[in-house]
Amino acid sequence: MNIDGKPYRTIWLDDDGRAVAVIDQTRLPHDFVIRRLASMAEAAEAIRGMIVRGAPLIGAAGAYGMALAMAEDPSDAMLGQAYTTLLETRPTAVNLRWALDDLRGRLTKLPPSGRRAAAYARAAEICDEDVAICRAIGDNGLALIRKIATRKTDGAPINALTHCNAGWLATVDWGTALAPLYRAHDAGIAIHVWVDETRPRNQGASLTAFELGRHGVPHTVIADNVGGHLMQQGMVDFCIVGTDRTTRTGDVCNKIGTYLKALAAHDNGVPFYVALPYPTIDWTIGDGLRAIPIERRDAREVSHMTGRTAAGAVETVAILPDGSPAANYAFDVTPARLVTALITERGVCPASEAGLLSLYPEQRPERRA
Amino acid sequence: MNIDGKPYRTIWLDDDGRAVAVIDQTRLPHDFVIRRLASMAEAAEAIRGMIVRGAPLIGAAGAYGMALAMAEDPSDAMLGQAYTTLLETRPTAVNLRWALDDLRGRLTKLPPSGRRAAAYARAAEICDEDVAICRAIGDNGLALIRKIATRKTDGAPINALTHCNAGWLATVDWGTALAPLYRAHDAGIAIHVWVDETRPRNQGASLTAFELGRHGVPHTVIADNVGGHLMQQGMVDFCIVGTDRTTRTGDVCNKIGTYLKALAAHDNGVPFYVALPYPTIDWTIGDGLRAIPIERRDAREVSHMTGRTAAGAVETVAILPDGSPAANYAFDVTPARLVTALITERGVCPASEAGLLSLYPEQRPERRA
Repeated sequence: MNIDGKPYRTIWLDDDGRAVAVIDQTRLPHDFVIRRLASMAEAAEAIRGMIVRGAPLIGAAGAYGMALAMAEDPSDAMLGQAYTTLLETRPTAVNLRWALDDLRGRLTKLPPSGRRAAAYARAAEICDEDVAICRAIGDNGLALIRKIATRKTDGAPINALTHCNAGWLATVDWGTALAPLYRAHDAGIAIHVWVDETRPRNQGASLTAFELGRHGVPHTVIADNVGGHLMQQGMVDFCIVGTDRTTRTGDVCNKIGTYLKALAAHDNGVPFYVALPYPTIDWTIGDGLRAIPIERRDAREVSHMTGRTAAGAVETVAILPDGSPAANYAFDVTPARLVTALITERGVCPASEAGLLSLYPEQRPERRA
Repeated sequence: MNIDGKPYRTIWLDDDGRAVAVIDQTRLPHDFVIRRLASMAEAAEAIRGMIVRGAPLIGAAGAYGMALAMAEDPSDAMLGQAYTTLLETRPTAVNLRWALDDLRGRLTKLPPSGRRAAAYARAAEICDEDVAICRAIGDNGLALIRKIATRKTDGAPINALTHCNAGWLATVDWGTALAPLYRAHDAGIAIHVWVDETRPRNQGASLTAFELGRHGVPHTVIADNVGGHLMQQGMVDFCIVGTDRTTRTGDVCNKIGTYLKALAAHDNGVPFYVALPYPTIDWTIGDGLRAIPIERRDAREVSHMTGRTAAGAVETVAILPDGSPAANYAFDVTPARLVTALITERGVCPASEAGLLSLYPEQRPERRA
């Protein structure tokens, strides 16, 4: 998408054909800094340090990490070492394992002399595939938004609400939840986005607001507490979020707080959509509330906040009283009953096993057996 | 309540018998500062700037603001001007109007020469009455907590969840929602409090955590997004919050985000209690969603965050990208259907007109007519 008129992806091959360039997401929104990753070790550090984040983008970065490793040394030893090092950076990210398995499987079959070129080609392909998937999600979501637009008779913009960042910064381009919003905006549909701040890591305030703003999409940042009130007052036409894992029954594991917005949407008759690429569906799990482990992260993410001082320096401040502990649960599970529909690269379906199987018939138990 | 062993109220008459002393709540939790309000204008500014906040405390501060006005000039003109100035400081809390109406009604009947003494006497009385009311709310809530305690067979502490600050810092002493928790803790019942951070002003992280910590009550601060997940996982025994205005039908207007927690409590069968003193009941309103004006505050409360740097300085940092607007709705309305019970100084009742009238029979229409 665009940053002040210039199109970007979140990851791309440097002009030298070897190093990989990424947007340093730890520096957003206050500084826009391109980081050049010149080695497998630097790629691993970028994933670990959340310079790149978002499941699809982590997968792409992992693939390029393997390519960098092959540029350094295309031996079997390096192949194994790169796989292990990269996998350990974010051991729970399913897309990372998927990309690394893909690369290792292909490269192992090749002689060392052919690995470098193959690795770079496959990494580029994974990036392009992610862009195509997200663009298709955008198309499918756009059709929903067009329907909502026909019901707006007052000429006011359509108001969407989103939580966390499921935009292009979380993918290679377009995003998942934000892809339909970009498509609508680019198609000339008047749209305004309520952006949940998304405490404790502020991905909404830091990343979603940044990318919407730089692309020119009207938006307003709100505290996570506000969405229910807006829905009560008729100020939200639909909610749309991403997901970190979706069960085969349509339960949605996403950033903590998603469940609360889904409850409010349900209570007020506001459609609640979840946008996802197919690798996010976990066909092995039926009950999201019982089966999905919820990551607990460092309490410091709750007790401290980073921002820019009036003098322009980026500073981290403590916001809790001395001696008060904090707890940091990173995700919650929204039961399928609260989800109006799932939007995938293949289309829109009910959040249910039957719904998902209608889009992914190859996953029917009789076909998988 | 105690701050490190020393008992405090939130507002008291200065030694000179004219100025009013308050704890500057904008400086908590990092600095404990007493502010001296020497004029009606300073009292109004203290309410507007949230140096004092919390519906009952605002009422008390408003009463002392009227007294300060009478010390400056006991004329009818000043009486009217002080009433208007003070009332305009905060539109949502009904206690302020209640206290100002009370003072104006009494003072109008008196000759100017008698107004100053009467105003100070009545302001002191309102403070003492608030303390007695909050203590009674604590007693009535304690009885509920004792019942919950008898159902806990695992010996684990009772887990309460609260939103915003309805503790002693929001009142003159004891608090409303926290009064039962203090009473339970002081009575030796093992209790642990999940403290919602309460963005954007962080009253939970700044004030509730501060006062619970200083009084020695076990607690954990969580992002506002977390409570739904905790309730889904059986980690909350009950929710308890205060209210800025409660309709005669039991709709509860409270800090933004309260509605989302009430939805989650309802969805998970967790009792959701609202603690309130009688001046918070607005007998003139039936439909909270339509009739209660929701204050919109400065967007800077969303876009900036204040905390303490590693070097020990208190610093304010910007957390939004340049050019991203923010909106700041301060309250929401929780429909009575989501409230398990109201806890007042007179007892516990259903959140309904019949429930409230059972505790306040003098408000029955036939008796008021």
